[in-house]
Amino acid sequence: MSHPNPGSTPRTRVRRLPEKAAQDRAALHAVLDAGLVAHVAITTEDGRPFVLPVAYARDGERVLIHGSTGSRLFRGLAAGAPTCLTVTLLDGVVVARSAFESSMHYRSAMVLGACTVVPEQDKATALDLITDRLLPGRRDELRPHRPKELAATLVLALTLDETSVKISDSPPDDEDDDLDTPIWAGVVPITEHFGEPVSAPDLRFDIAPPHYLRTWTR
Amino acid sequence: MSHPNPGSTPRTRVRRLPEKAAQDRAALHAVLDAGLVAHVAITTEDGRPFVLPVAYARDGERVLIHGSTGSRLFRGLAAGAPTCLTVTLLDGVVVARSAFESSMHYRSAMVLGACTVVPEQDKATALDLITDRLLPGRRDELRPHRPKELAATLVLALTLDETSVKISDSPPDDEDDDLDTPIWAGVVPITEHFGEPVSAPDLRFDIAPPHYLRTWTR
Repeated sequence: MSHPNPGSTPRTRVRRLPEKAAQDRAALHAVLDAGLVAHVAITTEDGRPFVLPVAYARDGERVLIHGSTGSRLFRGLAAGAPTCLTVTLLDGVVVARSAFESSMHYRSAMVLGACTVVPEQDKATALDLITDRLLPGRRDELRPHRPKELAATLVLALTLDETSVKISDSPPDDEDDDLDTPIWAGVVPITEHFGEPVSAPDLRFDIAPPHYLRTWTR
Repeated sequence: MSHPNPGSTPRTRVRRLPEKAAQDRAALHAVLDAGLVAHVAITTEDGRPFVLPVAYARDGERVLIHGSTGSRLFRGLAAGAPTCLTVTLLDGVVVARSAFESSMHYRSAMVLGACTVVPEQDKATALDLITDRLLPGRRDELRPHRPKELAATLVLALTLDETSVKISDSPPDDEDDDLDTPIWAGVVPITEHFGEPVSAPDLRFDIAPPHYLRTWTR
């Protein structure tokens, strides 16, 4: 099964700042695996786009998302509407010697296509995969899905065929004639962290946060 | 000048989990002011949505974005294409007693509408406002914009008229019959931080990172 490389189709070729485009699938996978939330778009009948944040998980050469059967976004995507799923990780602020060259460090992946509905018999496995990805270690403690929960959930898959990846991780790229300006330039990194777990107020047992939470990293 | 409250127009009413909808403009402003990157959508002629990350700044009752005159997204938006600008801040992972109730803490704002082009004579001021927002303190050190930089930049404004805000910040909301399960439940917070500034390798002067960077917080 062959999947085109990022940026290799007419609609995904990176035209703006092409030097920031990554063209290998490993880079695509790495960006998708580093994120927790994707922004997913759908176009309504009158041609207007909507963008909503959704949790997601990569499963090999596809991305899985799940949502309520009552969600207009998920119902539209389940019906095969064209979509764009974008994941962006913000890594820093680039402080250049001009406002014009100041920018951000980021990693961003875009996936174009249309979703397919994960069939009933595969839904529980797909949801478990999403749980494993977003809450690693948790699944062994959880009860099985209930039929009414599965019935209330749409699980959709989007294949990683039309994709692009852009990574901005360079120092400021100032014009030559700005380099003699005696002001500081550089990058202020942005990092994300998991904090101390906060127990639910309705916890009925004296249970410490489980060890696997300590393995979660951002 | 009156602007409708978040969620008060037919297209912005929050239907899924309406208890998470915030309906005051202060909440809208707070979410927009807390983010650095928005996901902005445009629909192409064949009805397919594209979503791209852009830096932005709130300016009163509008959001300003800027991009290259060579960007298809910005050219399309400048031509008046309908858009959706969504800002999402991820605040934590909600670890419930079931996979079904597990979710995220987040703050999300959505702005619908069409952009207007900030006219030439107001462009420098608008760009300065974006700089002040994303790099507070920096502007006093920067040289003025050059005419060719202004000419290469589109600055667009999107009015905060059709908006919605959703805030998820509650503990796990498990089913009653799950509360006797002797497993931990709670929230793992996610926080973002600015790290130690990294000087540009081509810095020609022995200049320490400026003090105003220390005031930047996430």
